[in-house]
Amino acid sequence: MIPRMLSITGVNEWCDGVMRPVNDYLAGEEPLEIRIGDIPVSVTMRTPGHEEDLALGFLITEGLIAGPADIVSVKHQPKQANRVHVELTAATEFDPRASQRNFYAVSSCGVCGKASIDAVRLRTIRPADAVCTIDPEVLCALPERLSAAQPVFSRTGGLHAAGLFSLNGELLVLREDIGRHNAVDKVVGWAVRRDLLPLAHSLLLVSGRGSFEIVQKTLAAGIPVLACVSAPSDLAVKLAREFGMTLIGFLRGRRFVIYSGAARLASTHL
Amino acid sequence: MIPRMLSITGVNEWCDGVMRPVNDYLAGEEPLEIRIGDIPVSVTMRTPGHEEDLALGFLITEGLIAGPADIVSVKHQPKQANRVHVELTAATEFDPRASQRNFYAVSSCGVCGKASIDAVRLRTIRPADAVCTIDPEVLCALPERLSAAQPVFSRTGGLHAAGLFSLNGELLVLREDIGRHNAVDKVVGWAVRRDLLPLAHSLLLVSGRGSFEIVQKTLAAGIPVLACVSAPSDLAVKLAREFGMTLIGFLRGRRFVIYSGAARLASTHL
Repeated sequence: MIPRMLSITGVNEWCDGVMRPVNDYLAGEEPLEIRIGDIPVSVTMRTPGHEEDLALGFLITEGLIAGPADIVSVKHQPKQANRVHVELTAATEFDPRASQRNFYAVSSCGVCGKASIDAVRLRTIRPADAVCTIDPEVLCALPERLSAAQPVFSRTGGLHAAGLFSLNGELLVLREDIGRHNAVDKVVGWAVRRDLLPLAHSLLLVSGRGSFEIVQKTLAAGIPVLACVSAPSDLAVKLAREFGMTLIGFLRGRRFVIYSGAARLASTHL
Repeated sequence: MIPRMLSITGVNEWCDGVMRPVNDYLAGEEPLEIRIGDIPVSVTMRTPGHEEDLALGFLITEGLIAGPADIVSVKHQPKQANRVHVELTAATEFDPRASQRNFYAVSSCGVCGKASIDAVRLRTIRPADAVCTIDPEVLCALPERLSAAQPVFSRTGGLHAAGLFSLNGELLVLREDIGRHNAVDKVVGWAVRRDLLPLAHSLLLVSGRGSFEIVQKTLAAGIPVLACVSAPSDLAVKLAREFGMTLIGFLRGRRFVIYSGAARLASTHL
């Protein structure tokens, strides 16, 4: 059976003392193996859909390849629904042992073998030095736009969302997944396929928290502004500050917090 | 500097057109390496605190060891704040190659090398066959009890929480972490240290969603009832049903959904 983004199942609902059978939608969750040639480099639990974009985004944002030019093909076949095959150019340096070492890096904790901040940091990320300005009023409008673009199911809380916006607030692409990192990777893979990297004039909005890894993935895609609906971690803030990224948290209603890169916010002192 | 659960930093708050500098608390996020002897078996991004419990719980719920009897010692030293050393008994079978193979399993995606549901499933989990009954009224009271036991900061959204309760609703232990899996592992490690496994007469409440992995970790600890404040995935429901676990979702106010194991709910039809 082909894995689906959603499934429906019979459950029981208890409400104020009364139990009754109802049907409920569930978010799909399936493992996806990413192979480079014959070498498995990652297995991640993901929501089915956009598998090739997920693989592309993953390879870029985890620093496993230098860039899209390294890739010959990315194939996801219905018969092997939980596997994506990636072929790299002959000239691409890809060491299976590096992949072994990166078994840490490819996990959703996104870190390598040594337990230090330097060690968990990708060497492929560059400062977010894009000169741009964001209007706070545009920022405030984004969560509603993201939500409006999600299917009704997604708003029930079963999936994470990541949306790429232009700096004037136009939604370029929205992806949803049970894994936050996967949603971001699917967005980046979408952009890779359209040769849009680095995404120097865009903004990423994520539905949940901002972890170290989400900041790192955003930097790897060249996106200068990351906005989160919820809180960032201290390490996420540290990395954002070091790399000059604008990091926004608690973007809700007409309020948000700027953790890093406030200079990109258009002046709002009247 | 010793990593902390919280840090404070100066940020800018934008509110309805006015920007002003404020101080903000951030959740700590640091990598933690778990070593068995000299072999690193995992690096996970976690919130500092309860490192030894995290390592214990992780080894058990990821199936890397058969049980607490395999462990000689678990040591976390302030000088190496981001590393935990575990020593196993000489009789314990622990193959470094198995650990290599488990690089998938040790990631927070918690799966092994083959991308099939069978392959991602631990062989160490057993059916949740504990005979017990839960009062729906007790269930409804749990989120408020969990929240009341959390420090104020945690309620702001920066951390995930996992709480172990007795079947009559008494909070046994609460742990918080930036990683959902870590919060569960810290709870299980707490119980391992007190020789309480299998936790056949208890209930686990998690603040977020119920993924396949959270269900699997709960089963590995022998807990028959898992309640989530948000939605479970389809694979989580499938695993819970196969193993006879009671899985509750959307536990909010006086309503919840029973995805599996409704027989453990005390009758509420008056």
